[in-house]
Amino acid sequence: MPSEPEMKAALQKYIDAFVASDADALAALFADDATVEDPVGSETLRGKEAIAAFYRKAVRVVTHMALSAPIRGSHGNAAAMAFDFEMNLRGRKVRTSAIDVMEFDDYGKIKAMRAYWGPSDSKTLGPEKEE
Amino acid sequence: MPSEPEMKAALQKYIDAFVASDADALAALFADDATVEDPVGSETLRGKEAIAAFYRKAVRVVTHMALSAPIRGSHGNAAAMAFDFEMNLRGRKVRTSAIDVMEFDDYGKIKAMRAYWGPSDSKTLGPEKEE
Repeated sequence: MPSEPEMKAALQKYIDAFVASDADALAALFADDATVEDPVGSETLRGKEAIAAFYRKAVRVVTHMALSAPIRGSHGNAAAMAFDFEMNLRGRKVRTSAIDVMEFDDYGKIKAMRAYWGPSDSKTLGPEKEE
Repeated sequence: MPSEPEMKAALQKYIDAFVASDADALAALFADDATVEDPVGSETLRGKEAIAAFYRKAVRVVTHMALSAPIRGSHGNAAAMAFDFEMNLRGRKVRTSAIDVMEFDDYGKIKAMRAYWGPSDSKTLGPEKEE
């Protein structure tokens, strides 16, 4: 099981990779057989190929990401973080508040990610919302 | 499935009940067959009796609790929140940062709660730490 600092460092790398629009760095955090449910309630992505494709799309629309509070660890193989991210969706700037929970395998790779955000956690920002 | 506002309201009630030291109000949020893993990595409590006993103990030591960021919903039956709480542990004031994830049943009761906080998320505050 990875240490708590190792898990927290992986979550910080996740934020940093989004800020750098680096889809390869994001995919590299995941185990080959990992799952991603983003948002919770949507179809679960399975396996590194599907996850890499997801992040290649995501980094093209996400323009900003920042922690809302310090990353939390656990007494187990998981860590969690609250953060905000902004997307450019067809010219509209949308800000979403999310909490991501990551479970890790013995090699320090993410084996399951769940992203908690719903319709009420997104809002359209800026003058573009009238278009 | 409860609505996203209903789930978020339940999480706010959880915070409010802790602030009011109201263990009955906390237990009332849970389904009869609910589970609580607090913190993640510890033994999972099963059933309302075990959960009620847990909160009766918890409200005696928790002196403060407040959200770190707005509560998050989801597109499914879950919601999550980042918060800080303070405990009085044998005269020492300890502050812990946590993220709780709650899954709900069809009746709007919590069926599973997981609390993400680890050793590195707690720190001793105040002059009592030297005792």
